[in-house]
Amino acid sequence: MFPKKGRSSLKSRELTAEIIAVGTELLLGAIVNTNAAYLSRKLASIGINVYYQTTVGDNPERIQAAIRLALSRSDIVITSGGLGPTVDDITLPMIAKAIGRPMVFKKCIMDEIKKYFRARGINRITCNVERQAYMPEGAVCFINTVGTAAGVAIHAGKAVIIALPGPPRELEPMFDSTIIPYLRKKGCAGTGVIKTRTIQLTGIFESAVDSRAKDLLELSGSRTVGIYSKPGMVELKITAKAKSAREAEKKIKPVELEIRKRFGDFIFGTDGETLEQVVGRSLAGRGLTIAMAESCTGGLIGHRLTEVSGSSRYFVMGVVSYSNPAKKAILNVKHETLARHGAVSREVAREMALGIRAISGADIGLAVTGIAGPTGGTTKKPVGLVYIALSSKGRTQIRECRFTGDRSSIKWRTSSAALDLIRRSLK
Amino acid sequence: MFPKKGRSSLKSRELTAEIIAVGTELLLGAIVNTNAAYLSRKLASIGINVYYQTTVGDNPERIQAAIRLALSRSDIVITSGGLGPTVDDITLPMIAKAIGRPMVFKKCIMDEIKKYFRARGINRITCNVERQAYMPEGAVCFINTVGTAAGVAIHAGKAVIIALPGPPRELEPMFDSTIIPYLRKKGCAGTGVIKTRTIQLTGIFESAVDSRAKDLLELSGSRTVGIYSKPGMVELKITAKAKSAREAEKKIKPVELEIRKRFGDFIFGTDGETLEQVVGRSLAGRGLTIAMAESCTGGLIGHRLTEVSGSSRYFVMGVVSYSNPAKKAILNVKHETLARHGAVSREVAREMALGIRAISGADIGLAVTGIAGPTGGTTKKPVGLVYIALSSKGRTQIRECRFTGDRSSIKWRTSSAALDLIRRSLK
Repeated sequence: MFPKKGRSSLKSRELTAEIIAVGTELLLGAIVNTNAAYLSRKLASIGINVYYQTTVGDNPERIQAAIRLALSRSDIVITSGGLGPTVDDITLPMIAKAIGRPMVFKKCIMDEIKKYFRARGINRITCNVERQAYMPEGAVCFINTVGTAAGVAIHAGKAVIIALPGPPRELEPMFDSTIIPYLRKKGCAGTGVIKTRTIQLTGIFESAVDSRAKDLLELSGSRTVGIYSKPGMVELKITAKAKSAREAEKKIKPVELEIRKRFGDFIFGTDGETLEQVVGRSLAGRGLTIAMAESCTGGLIGHRLTEVSGSSRYFVMGVVSYSNPAKKAILNVKHETLARHGAVSREVAREMALGIRAISGADIGLAVTGIAGPTGGTTKKPVGLVYIALSSKGRTQIRECRFTGDRSSIKWRTSSAALDLIRRSLK
Repeated sequence: MFPKKGRSSLKSRELTAEIIAVGTELLLGAIVNTNAAYLSRKLASIGINVYYQTTVGDNPERIQAAIRLALSRSDIVITSGGLGPTVDDITLPMIAKAIGRPMVFKKCIMDEIKKYFRARGINRITCNVERQAYMPEGAVCFINTVGTAAGVAIHAGKAVIIALPGPPRELEPMFDSTIIPYLRKKGCAGTGVIKTRTIQLTGIFESAVDSRAKDLLELSGSRTVGIYSKPGMVELKITAKAKSAREAEKKIKPVELEIRKRFGDFIFGTDGETLEQVVGRSLAGRGLTIAMAESCTGGLIGHRLTEVSGSSRYFVMGVVSYSNPAKKAILNVKHETLARHGAVSREVAREMALGIRAISGADIGLAVTGIAGPTGGTTKKPVGLVYIALSSKGRTQIRECRFTGDRSSIKWRTSSAALDLIRRSLK
């Protein structure tokens, strides 16, 4: 059903939104439209129903037609893309045309753009950049902290149009930090809320999670549970609809507790926490330091650990010993261990972990050695065979893993298993 | 402009398609719509223009409205999702309603479903599965080799509707192996092909690329150029439509040469090549080895280099010296250099590069030191300040960079600039 025709004002109860992604590259399939999912999730969280997501190319008539259609059936129309400095970027003039407004030059935006370039040591600006300072008359602008394209809100009749830059790294922070507060202020947030809680598991197969949570996955009505498999983890997502956030939370809680009871230690985080954040918090909380000796992961574990701000408190150093001489010279792995057992072995993993702990002086030494493929595997030591060793005071534990997939996903799974071994050892 | 109203038949020259994804989970943002990109790419490859991608929820009226709208403006309408056995799955009955056809039971489909379950050791089928054997009258069915939902083609007036299952692992093989041949057979494939060539640049701003390629970006007709900004790089994508792949290639070539002439050294790759692949090929080709001393990137450069199969031929080792003691103990950075200039300095970068080259014995030593943020910046040394040093036989060069963005993107840009410095040094 189309949302009621005779809606009275934006403050009506059931607000509907429509998302229009603009960009020929989307229609060519060169880019996946992740913005639609992001915006939909965020809109749901403030009680706004998204009824349509549309994608159009950089075509004047079709952009206008899409905007007019959206305005005829939705309260909030959000566009993404087409705000850049190039001739292809025509979203704003098309919005202006669709609602019959002129484009006007905004000096304040131009000043922000100049500031942006000056901060990057550029004082002469190419004239195409100036295009980004033109806005439909009456537009409210939102500064882009990551790029030069400002965001825009325009009230047209009873509806509001929000135009956002296309790159997710610009769109996401802008939507969170300025658009959501703006919608709330203007009374455009919905009265009901949809809340979700994501429980993240690792070290367990999706099929095992599925069969142990079958009854929960079959819940229907105002409370549902979904299962999603991601590289190195499985997610159970609880969704509840209610009149208030508190009521939604009340519906979520018992399901969450049940999931926690059933899956215990397999659960490492909630609501998008990363393994590296969880591990980092544990290390920082215990005042422990860690050092890494990586072989097949090539530095990925160190990279993931240092994605967390403040990781210098616990991450001392890493060695990527990609060659046997490096394993010997830096980590003091014995020549005979390498010769007898091979670089991918329980014994070498142990010596690498002991070695990195000794030379770094860290409380924990972690080591991985394995075959990421696609070449280098043998019948006895196939691609995907990985040893992970964790050495702490008086104890060294070693795990053997067998992963499948391509080089990149074997590296990723190895790094996840390594981080999970740290997490479990800190329990 | 909407595609011409009075089109004569499906065999007309410029065919347009529209993709409708069905599923409330897409509107909630729980799933990213990768099907739209996949189908668009495949349709482009057989000369069919996609003008719209739409997403609607599991709502009878809105699904019907979307189908009617699509039929009014497109030759080929492809739906994905809503073919499953649950009560939410209503795509087929809604197509039937939209075009005024009854739903009929197809025994041949029911037999296939039974076969599917029998092959998995299941002999008693729950009755909801039977729903999947009902089809709009006149439908042509395509067997699903991966699941139970059959694909469907229905000719309605001058248009054709194709209904596909939602899960990508079911949709993709079905589209490739049965739908594309079906469209070709029915004369629904475009008479021409669309080919693209992507030229990838790094070390230059999007706005600078834009102003230097303005005339190319304004090309219209059967040959166009688009510009896309991605983390650490800018892409120029040439798209050509022609009757044959060879003719399309002929149209692309002169534009590609012009781009290569204008941007020279800023171009690092073509058609999705990564910087690490290009660098790896250069190193392997010259028989050179490399070692890495990373600070703020935490191992990311090593991780990227080792994403390439065969990288053990040139990547010897890496040290992630995340603390000052590690810089001194392992890389032999002098205490006084650290004390006088600070860890983030030209001088420390130089000593790190010399140090890693010396201890590894590699031909090239690369070092990065910087402030990834969000904390740790000062007025003199702000977040985003990075030094990259490259030491080779008899020569050490150092670059100062100032990046913006969050921690993760500063790390990424640093790793790209470092890889680019290696690339340029190997020219």
